Amino acid sequence: MTHIDLGLDEKIAPGIRGLLRYRPETGRPLSELAEVLLRGDSSLSRGEREYIAAHVSRLNDCSYCAQSHGAVAAAEGMPVSASLGPKMRALLEVAAATRIGGHEVTATLIEEARSAGATDLEIHDTVLLAAAFSMFNRYVDALGTFAPEDARAYEAGAARIVEHGYLTPPPS
Amino acid sequence: MTHIDLGLDEKIAPGIRGLLRYRPETGRPLSELAEVLLRGDSSLSRGEREYIAAHVSRLNDCSYCAQSHGAVAAAEGMPVSASLGPKMRALLEVAAATRIGGHEVTATLIEEARSAGATDLEIHDTVLLAAAFSMFNRYVDALGTFAPEDARAYEAGAARIVEHGYLTPPPS
Repeated sequence: MTHIDLGLDEKIAPGIRGLLRYRPETGRPLSELAEVLLRGDSSLSRGEREYIAAHVSRLNDCSYCAQSHGAVAAAEGMPVSASLGPKMRALLEVAAATRIGGHEVTATLIEEARSAGATDLEIHDTVLLAAAFSMFNRYVDALGTFAPEDARAYEAGAARIVEHGYLTPPPS
Repeated sequence: MTHIDLGLDEKIAPGIRGLLRYRPETGRPLSELAEVLLRGDSSLSRGEREYIAAHVSRLNDCSYCAQSHGAVAAAEGMPVSASLGPKMRALLEVAAATRIGGHEVTATLIEEARSAGATDLEIHDTVLLAAAFSMFNRYVDALGTFAPEDARAYEAGAARIVEHGYLTPPPS
């Protein structure tokens, strides 16, 4: 159960959704960051970026974020079982190291990503994605928010994100 | 040395400053989040919030962020040596647990903060501050940005933040 009183039904606004509504002053820049990182102009596809977000969230044991972004990745054509090329595999290594801590990302790891075809901007965005989900995952779990168990809830949310993005709040 | 080419002099734009300029699409929401969390309306003083940010950054071994926000905390009247009341001590416990991971924040820890006088909004903002610095610290260190050694660089930056905030970029 959520540790603080969000003044809303956690079944209707689970996970981060209730938090974004509870504190709109912080909710707005958080939503804008998600929109730019996951859906803005990039040479990484939306599916690839959602896959990185879901991967970091799984490693952080954040059930709500892992299921939400896993469902969006699948809806964008990147299911968990997707076979990955060398560039994505190298970027996932960078993301996994960033998740553990900033000092875990070595020049060697960056060089391996570059050798596998990643551009500087792709490396930057992967690091920031992993860092941002190190924030989102903690925010969602430290406040004890509700995570639905039914996969259909995440699939419905994913369909809405694919169509409307992270800036349009879902109907309450 | 910075792992990617930011196209600017890291001595002039050290730490996160070079990153915010390299990728303004993500820099804008990141700056807005910092401004709201550290300087927006709150029953926690600006000094208290900067102190929490510096504390989390020290625990994450992020030299640039710890020195930057430590200097702003001091400029706002909260030096590292400040003696803290029970509410701030309890909120720092919540922040330290959030830094380790979302699941470390127990109902008991939240209840202790509440018993020490913290409101739900103060608990929310402390969790989000610690989560946000779990992001900023990783972002700054994973990309290998430059951290000045001279304390005067951080004091000058702090004076500018106190006067202009996080939304006004420093002159280049």
